[in-house]
Amino acid sequence: MLKTNAFMEAAFEEARAAGERGEVPIGAVIVHGNEIISRAGNETRALNDVSAHAEVLAIRRAAQVLSDERLIDADLYVTLEPCTMCAAAISFARIRRLYYAARDAKGGAVESGVRFYTQPTCHHAPEVYSGIRETEAADMLRDFFREKRD
Amino acid sequence: MLKTNAFMEAAFEEARAAGERGEVPIGAVIVHGNEIISRAGNETRALNDVSAHAEVLAIRRAAQVLSDERLIDADLYVTLEPCTMCAAAISFARIRRLYYAARDAKGGAVESGVRFYTQPTCHHAPEVYSGIRETEAADMLRDFFREKRD
Repeated sequence: MLKTNAFMEAAFEEARAAGERGEVPIGAVIVHGNEIISRAGNETRALNDVSAHAEVLAIRRAAQVLSDERLIDADLYVTLEPCTMCAAAISFARIRRLYYAARDAKGGAVESGVRFYTQPTCHHAPEVYSGIRETEAADMLRDFFREKRD
Repeated sequence: MLKTNAFMEAAFEEARAAGERGEVPIGAVIVHGNEIISRAGNETRALNDVSAHAEVLAIRRAAQVLSDERLIDADLYVTLEPCTMCAAAISFARIRRLYYAARDAKGGAVESGVRFYTQPTCHHAPEVYSGIRETEAADMLRDFFREKRD
């Protein structure tokens, strides 16, 4: 398995674990020096914190590991297109490359919505790679919300 | 002094305290039931956390006070136009009214930049009141960055 695939698989593991905790099943990992230095799933309910999306938690944890709020040369893998809040946090953290699985037309902010990285008020844009295992990631979210409704 | 002015003054106090700690001088308070329930200044440096903007910290603290991640009927006062990350967090937290002092053409996301609250991917928009003591707030930021350069 290619390293990139292994990193995305780790993000999927975090997403599944979040779903099992009753959180929206989205997961993220941050890679630095070819190793995973932080991982997180959504924890908005557990923490009563609207900012506790997987990406923001992974960024906060990676910053503790590197003792630097800027994550130079770090890459972020996440199972869903980041929302407007997370897209901006990824920019502020100076993430080098962003890999994500499914597109989020309703709440995303990279190829959807405000397309933050193309905006003049965005002062650092990561390289973006998307569509990796997108069907699987979208299905996981769809199943979660279907079960919640039932 | 009108209550609204007292609340904005409390946000200015947080901004000044942040500046004295060497943080970018921006402050915020959250009001619920006509009382301040949380206050914060920027702490990105102290916490090594790009998400530790005054608004996000105030929202996290208010959610702990109310034991709910959604801050229904709560109003946020902040000394600068919220950035893209904070504008989205304010929306997620269901803040009722947003009051801010200075406009931020370079990084703001309410009347500047992505104008998040007018976008289809924004699913809750607060009522917005801006321009309150804007010159004073802008001067505080300008002085801070000038001193840093010198």
